[in-house]
Amino acid sequence: MATLGAQRKHKVTVVGSGNWGTTMSKLVAENVAANPTLFEQTVTMWVYEEEVTIPKDSRHYDPSSERANKPQKLSELFNKVHENIKYLPNITVPSNVVANPDVVEACRDSTILIFVLPHQFIPRVCDQLVGKIVPYARAICCTKGVDVGAEGIKLMPEAIGMRLNIYCGALSGANIATEIAQEKYSETTVAYDPPPMDSRHPTPKGSPTASQVDLISPSKPIPSARSAHLKPLPNEYPPLSHENVRKLFHRPYFHVRIVDDVAGVSLGGALKNIIALAAGFVDGLGWGDNAKAAVMRVGILEMVKFGKRFFPDSVKTSTFTEESCGVADVVTSCMGGRNFRCAKMAVERGESIYDIEQKVLNGQKLQGTSTAYEVHEFLRRDNHEADFPLFTAVYNILEGNAKPEDIPELIEPKP
Amino acid sequence: MATLGAQRKHKVTVVGSGNWGTTMSKLVAENVAANPTLFEQTVTMWVYEEEVTIPKDSRHYDPSSERANKPQKLSELFNKVHENIKYLPNITVPSNVVANPDVVEACRDSTILIFVLPHQFIPRVCDQLVGKIVPYARAICCTKGVDVGAEGIKLMPEAIGMRLNIYCGALSGANIATEIAQEKYSETTVAYDPPPMDSRHPTPKGSPTASQVDLISPSKPIPSARSAHLKPLPNEYPPLSHENVRKLFHRPYFHVRIVDDVAGVSLGGALKNIIALAAGFVDGLGWGDNAKAAVMRVGILEMVKFGKRFFPDSVKTSTFTEESCGVADVVTSCMGGRNFRCAKMAVERGESIYDIEQKVLNGQKLQGTSTAYEVHEFLRRDNHEADFPLFTAVYNILEGNAKPEDIPELIEPKP
Repeated sequence: MATLGAQRKHKVTVVGSGNWGTTMSKLVAENVAANPTLFEQTVTMWVYEEEVTIPKDSRHYDPSSERANKPQKLSELFNKVHENIKYLPNITVPSNVVANPDVVEACRDSTILIFVLPHQFIPRVCDQLVGKIVPYARAICCTKGVDVGAEGIKLMPEAIGMRLNIYCGALSGANIATEIAQEKYSETTVAYDPPPMDSRHPTPKGSPTASQVDLISPSKPIPSARSAHLKPLPNEYPPLSHENVRKLFHRPYFHVRIVDDVAGVSLGGALKNIIALAAGFVDGLGWGDNAKAAVMRVGILEMVKFGKRFFPDSVKTSTFTEESCGVADVVTSCMGGRNFRCAKMAVERGESIYDIEQKVLNGQKLQGTSTAYEVHEFLRRDNHEADFPLFTAVYNILEGNAKPEDIPELIEPKP
Repeated sequence: MATLGAQRKHKVTVVGSGNWGTTMSKLVAENVAANPTLFEQTVTMWVYEEEVTIPKDSRHYDPSSERANKPQKLSELFNKVHENIKYLPNITVPSNVVANPDVVEACRDSTILIFVLPHQFIPRVCDQLVGKIVPYARAICCTKGVDVGAEGIKLMPEAIGMRLNIYCGALSGANIATEIAQEKYSETTVAYDPPPMDSRHPTPKGSPTASQVDLISPSKPIPSARSAHLKPLPNEYPPLSHENVRKLFHRPYFHVRIVDDVAGVSLGGALKNIIALAAGFVDGLGWGDNAKAAVMRVGILEMVKFGKRFFPDSVKTSTFTEESCGVADVVTSCMGGRNFRCAKMAVERGESIYDIEQKVLNGQKLQGTSTAYEVHEFLRRDNHEADFPLFTAVYNILEGNAKPEDIPELIEPKP
């Protein structure tokens, strides 16, 4: 119904191919196949090219092949075996995902860009794309983290939206990639507060689209929408309403709730990593589940306070306390996430978290430590540290100024 | 300061001596010792008398004693060794806790009664106490659960308050008893909305008490206060303000937050056990941390909806989403609590949860199953089931009408 009158379809590119990027490509590819009137059938995945050798325990290792034990290009291997053998081994991705190592080529003509890059690569990749994408493209940012600069704190969707001069929403939730790749049940939150021109698509008389129903309540401006001079999505495309955005992400094993609060969703995804470090420190001491739950609760309240104080016009408390990107992501991150596991291991072994990071993360970096530093830098400037005792405690533990054992005293509410 | 003019001290009785009751006696005894101007130094613990034999692996087992291998009375043994060898082994309780097997004797003259009984014993014990306690006694209920009767749903503090005609608050939080007994860090929520006459204690001119500061915001009536004709606390006693109630429970390892929402706190403690069953079912399927977090999030939202719909005048959303008795208790209960563990084991072994209960709980009963049935009975009456799909799913799984694998579909939000 929502596609009446549309002659063109949305082309989707996933910008990134780590374990989360590859997982995202898989589920989006399943959804474009299920919605052929809305989306082009090929999903392009930009791959940061590297040479890989198929491990001997891989199902794709063929000792009789002349290529066995020889390095191959990751993108070429992916397009042959439909598996990211380095970052998401043993998961077959649908054949309508095509890897492309050229980011400009990968994004050309795409109306939907899904960013799933490590935080530190965002500026460089966006710079390469300036002027090379369609001006009415829309983005969804799945990358977590914040940037603190001279002008204050900037969220990832805002950074992407401003650099590319396009609208950028956010996706974040209790989403350990490997579990979703295995199609185990989970939920996520998509923040997409579409520019009105994308949704109020002309339709034949008497056939209101579901997207119009979605838009009965006026949406508030969000940072990326405010700061960009957005080009309208041409009428030939199906509208990018909540309903259609949901169709791009929702799977029977991946339940999507759509909200308008882009700032809250991306803040939750960033700040929860600090909480996961705190939970890991406490769990590493062997203090049990009550202590871990206490640290998580205090952390969620600091998230809420942070959002309300620094993004008062856009952030809603419920985004943190009721959505997957808030409370549920804190829960998952504090049970099995990387930041939690590394922090716990550091305390148990009496080593620094940076040593643990090097040993167990296969070259990848923890997001929690850099976020803790960025957030602390931001809080310190205007003397907000005392109001965020848990975030501050994590920073001080990382810096060696405090010990994990000090956490209860540091966060103790004064009567 | 708050005790100026007070000539008498509060006498405290803990009604119950299971693992949580014994733990509560321990921490309250530490606090009465730390606050000798407010509280009598002896804490009485009512023990449901039973015969116990000291196990051979107990530190109190003495093969040379003539009593070795002979049954002894639990209360007498407790008063000799200061340890509840049956329900909280290996934890020494301060010697100012005195066990008494006679509930009327144990509560005589006590101004503070802390109820820590299994749900099903509350009515019987209260009936024994009617007319035998001081009329101005105050209670704190640590028991979780709800009673559904012909007149609707009744919370435990309400049941206690109405039967004894006294004010009853509630204590609930992310509190696995054994961890607190070991003095591992945790938090709790105490709901105590004191009758004004308890706090607005006459004080010498120019010395406002901290309790008056606590009462700047007028407190709303709560069920037990509304339904009881409360006798004022005599002036000779220190006021039972938030400040003084906090002194009874707060420890460096047990952080207390005090709120007014008695209904929300006790509802959280009851409903979280249904959520823990759901989380256990899902975890038993091996679905991982995302799935567990999703079920927990959906459960918290059903808690909020339940509270707001059925206790609209008293329940606050934040009690569930921000306090230890809400989100944190859900977290703890879904990590290591009994209901979670038994539900998980039932799915893993393909056995009924009742079989598991018998095998692993040493004669104790799960609270989650009975709460799931009570809540379902209440929801069914007026056709509220569809609005509480997770609570209803748990009931249907217990009844054999649904399978754990059905949970995602049953709780899937309709677009």
